[in-house]
Amino acid sequence: MRIGLAQLNYHIGNFEGNYAKIKAAIDEAQHNRADLIIFSELAISGYPPRDFLEFSDFIRLCEETTQKIADDTRRTGVGVIVGCPTRNPRIEGKDLFNSALLIADGRVIHQSNKALLPTYDVFDEYRYFEPAREFSVAELKGVRLAITVCEDIWNIGNENPLYTICPMDELIKQKPELIINISASPFDYDQRETRLKVIRANSTRYGIPLLYCNHAGAQTELIFDGASLILNEAGVVVDELPWYEETIRFYDTEQLYQARNPLSQDNLHAKGKYERIHGALVLGIRDYFQKLGFSKAIVGLSGGVDSALTLVLAAEALGSEHVSAVFMPSRFTATESVIDAKRMAENLSVQCTSISIDDVFEACLAELQPHFAEKPFNVTEENIQARIRAIYLMALCNKFGYILLNTSNKSENAVGYGTLYGDMAGGLSVLGDLYKTDVYELCRHVNRDREIIPESIISKPPTAELRPNQKDEDDLPPYAILDQILLEYIEHRKGPSEIIAMEFDEAIVRRTLKLVNTSEYKRHQTPPMLRVSPKAFGMGRRVPIVGKYLS
Amino acid sequence: MRIGLAQLNYHIGNFEGNYAKIKAAIDEAQHNRADLIIFSELAISGYPPRDFLEFSDFIRLCEETTQKIADDTRRTGVGVIVGCPTRNPRIEGKDLFNSALLIADGRVIHQSNKALLPTYDVFDEYRYFEPAREFSVAELKGVRLAITVCEDIWNIGNENPLYTICPMDELIKQKPELIINISASPFDYDQRETRLKVIRANSTRYGIPLLYCNHAGAQTELIFDGASLILNEAGVVVDELPWYEETIRFYDTEQLYQARNPLSQDNLHAKGKYERIHGALVLGIRDYFQKLGFSKAIVGLSGGVDSALTLVLAAEALGSEHVSAVFMPSRFTATESVIDAKRMAENLSVQCTSISIDDVFEACLAELQPHFAEKPFNVTEENIQARIRAIYLMALCNKFGYILLNTSNKSENAVGYGTLYGDMAGGLSVLGDLYKTDVYELCRHVNRDREIIPESIISKPPTAELRPNQKDEDDLPPYAILDQILLEYIEHRKGPSEIIAMEFDEAIVRRTLKLVNTSEYKRHQTPPMLRVSPKAFGMGRRVPIVGKYLS
Repeated sequence: MRIGLAQLNYHIGNFEGNYAKIKAAIDEAQHNRADLIIFSELAISGYPPRDFLEFSDFIRLCEETTQKIADDTRRTGVGVIVGCPTRNPRIEGKDLFNSALLIADGRVIHQSNKALLPTYDVFDEYRYFEPAREFSVAELKGVRLAITVCEDIWNIGNENPLYTICPMDELIKQKPELIINISASPFDYDQRETRLKVIRANSTRYGIPLLYCNHAGAQTELIFDGASLILNEAGVVVDELPWYEETIRFYDTEQLYQARNPLSQDNLHAKGKYERIHGALVLGIRDYFQKLGFSKAIVGLSGGVDSALTLVLAAEALGSEHVSAVFMPSRFTATESVIDAKRMAENLSVQCTSISIDDVFEACLAELQPHFAEKPFNVTEENIQARIRAIYLMALCNKFGYILLNTSNKSENAVGYGTLYGDMAGGLSVLGDLYKTDVYELCRHVNRDREIIPESIISKPPTAELRPNQKDEDDLPPYAILDQILLEYIEHRKGPSEIIAMEFDEAIVRRTLKLVNTSEYKRHQTPPMLRVSPKAFGMGRRVPIVGKYLS
Repeated sequence: MRIGLAQLNYHIGNFEGNYAKIKAAIDEAQHNRADLIIFSELAISGYPPRDFLEFSDFIRLCEETTQKIADDTRRTGVGVIVGCPTRNPRIEGKDLFNSALLIADGRVIHQSNKALLPTYDVFDEYRYFEPAREFSVAELKGVRLAITVCEDIWNIGNENPLYTICPMDELIKQKPELIINISASPFDYDQRETRLKVIRANSTRYGIPLLYCNHAGAQTELIFDGASLILNEAGVVVDELPWYEETIRFYDTEQLYQARNPLSQDNLHAKGKYERIHGALVLGIRDYFQKLGFSKAIVGLSGGVDSALTLVLAAEALGSEHVSAVFMPSRFTATESVIDAKRMAENLSVQCTSISIDDVFEACLAELQPHFAEKPFNVTEENIQARIRAIYLMALCNKFGYILLNTSNKSENAVGYGTLYGDMAGGLSVLGDLYKTDVYELCRHVNRDREIIPESIISKPPTAELRPNQKDEDDLPPYAILDQILLEYIEHRKGPSEIIAMEFDEAIVRRTLKLVNTSEYKRHQTPPMLRVSPKAFGMGRRVPIVGKYLS
């Protein structure tokens, strides 16, 4: 049997666009004399459709698209496996299933519903879907296929299994010859190893080849990295599709058995952490703009490292000619910042405008100071400056159709070191899931071949330049310490006593966790942040604003 | 058996505070010679604790508090039923249960775990909890109790049951004499009827009395209205606890059988929609401030109806002396707005400051216009004005420790008729779940006895006053039409063809739904909105930003 794996970039709710891609792939499969072509999880609707699933009208559009695909299978003779929400015919339980449909000869000939519904971190699947309780192997042209949806092959080999059943243990009793898994599995910098381990555990446990088809593309904060996998019956990776890109490839299943990968198993697409993050962020920016129908970005350039890196990534994603930089100096701006910002923009051939905030700041103070009861200069005046910059940037967005890229990093977002409606503004946060120490590492990765980000930007101490001689480390613990504490608390969900036991200073730990928890109200109002870690702020981390835990 | 029902206001993660209330109630129960006192769902941790539940340290604090309560039961001889997250001893499945613990004589003598885990709208319970699969009746002093947690009694009498099992059908086989249900059931303006119907269906189906103990208090956007209920074995309401308030009352269970309510069943606490909303919003504001440790609010007063109503509610929740109003006129501000704003503040004895935005607006335009490429006045300049006002309000917050109350209504939030980082700013949105037409109704309710909100504010056509002679209805369909379409789309989840079939103009329907869906990026960055409807923006409505459905 000849099978195509279509690793495509879908768009949530864009039924016409998604169908056009699926149809073109079916035609390509016909041209390649394939028997079957495989698309990823919820390909028809795009993943995750979230509460659009609650609209009967949305499900009707899914059904209409399924019918069009069925017509294409009749026209071409190519079978299709595709992910789609389907209605649960039983009255009891949730209204929908998360299904993999096997379509051939003009009709759905088999339906596998997802049993293990991820409902943690960024996932909300039990919000919408009823879990499958029955499992059956499909057959196409005499080949017996165990068709599974994403998480359904993830409940093996875990020390702490999230679920009480294992769908493949049921399916294997019916003697399938191939495992097919359709997924929409989001990227994080560690995900590739985890995923490969799980997929390999399946092909070796059940002793048959496995075709894993992932989505490649970003949906707001979630980045799906593709990297679809073909494994033989012994868990050897026969092929891995490109990361971050749409690709269609064809395989003869007979040749998968005992197939060996031409590449060494160890070096197979091995990418370092920052190479991975780099590619993911570029995809994340590109898709956010493309899927919203925008082409141009604006970035407020400060002369610091966060805005420099954001500008590099934006220029790579959108093209330098589609990115504008704005430098907005004040009385507190150092001469080096002016020089660094200018050089940064020049290095990328990005157009850079300079607009002073001083007169507007003066005008604000003139109006407000009579109402300040002679209180001294404090964070109030700092925030006013940051907010004037946001007014400028948003005004240019409104006049020219830019999206403002937010330049805050994860350390700042964590401890609330930023001005709401000021530097925390923007349509999309590019670095919001990268700790400051990771920002520096990514800058070094960007500069690996030549100096794109001026070394002076990387080497100077970070400052918000909102008061005379301000340095971040006057207000916060050193980032090298802070980021380690944050990682333990946010990614590893360790409590204060566990972190203190790791030999961090108790007062710093307690102050840091308190800052994190009392800043929840700010994070509630931030732009979506491109997710590159296993635990990002946003939809995957849900914390009460009025909570009084460690605060 | 003498049972106390403790309808208290808990605070998420505030273990000391929650325990102090529980302990005081146990002491009161002892004083009243009660055998048992009942607290609501997850009372020990506060509800909903959300991702705090993922911290082992948080669960440890729950366990320590449980032990303190156990000690109190030994000390007092009073039994306790209290909600608490508990660890799942099995390796498979989620790590926790949502439990009702029966504690007596110094130890937990029975544990009922929740089986039906709401995972829809604002609820995420399957994110954290493993559902119970076994059910057993508890016994205290010879009385057999069917102890259930919230949703577990909600799967009867529905036409479209969300779940496939019914815990009470299992428990009734063990012949309980009482149903006890501990809940944290959030308010909406229709919830009381639904709740009473469900609770009554239980007591009549199983033929035994039911004690329903709810939480009374707000947690960020969620308002828990209390209104706990005691029903006899025939479904007659014997007592209903007050709405929105902490209360402890005691009942002799022997007297519940065949007890009749002294009040007419129909008039029992019957409140109109706007009376309900009024009380809920006041509680929502009060608890947001109290639980965050703030006491003072600031409101930007425009002379329009939204800010007037917000000011009324804030003054009622916090006291007039804790509320400041700021009027921020521009060249586009009508004289009537000045007069109306001033009268509004005077009516409430709220201090009102006036600060012009004109000079700062001029200063902004002077800096920005050279960069505007001679494009004409448009929404850019409107947004600048709104954002200058936000700078002023936030500056006063920073200087004096106010929380800014947002005054946007649900109609504006729905169609994106507001300025991000401008009038969409604030710590809490008071009216964000009230359509404009509901805002008017609530104003009339406020004015039911005397004119608190000047009639001129209610009767003039709504305007943002951001350009000459601007009226909302120049930009939007009339609110009377718009709000009906929004209700069908948002609350009723009707699709475009269904709404058009209701004889709305097709072009207006399509334009409205498109505005709603393309404004998702704005709503992503809004403050939490007090939830009073069955479908509010925020945690209960999760829509992709890059989605292309009806957009």
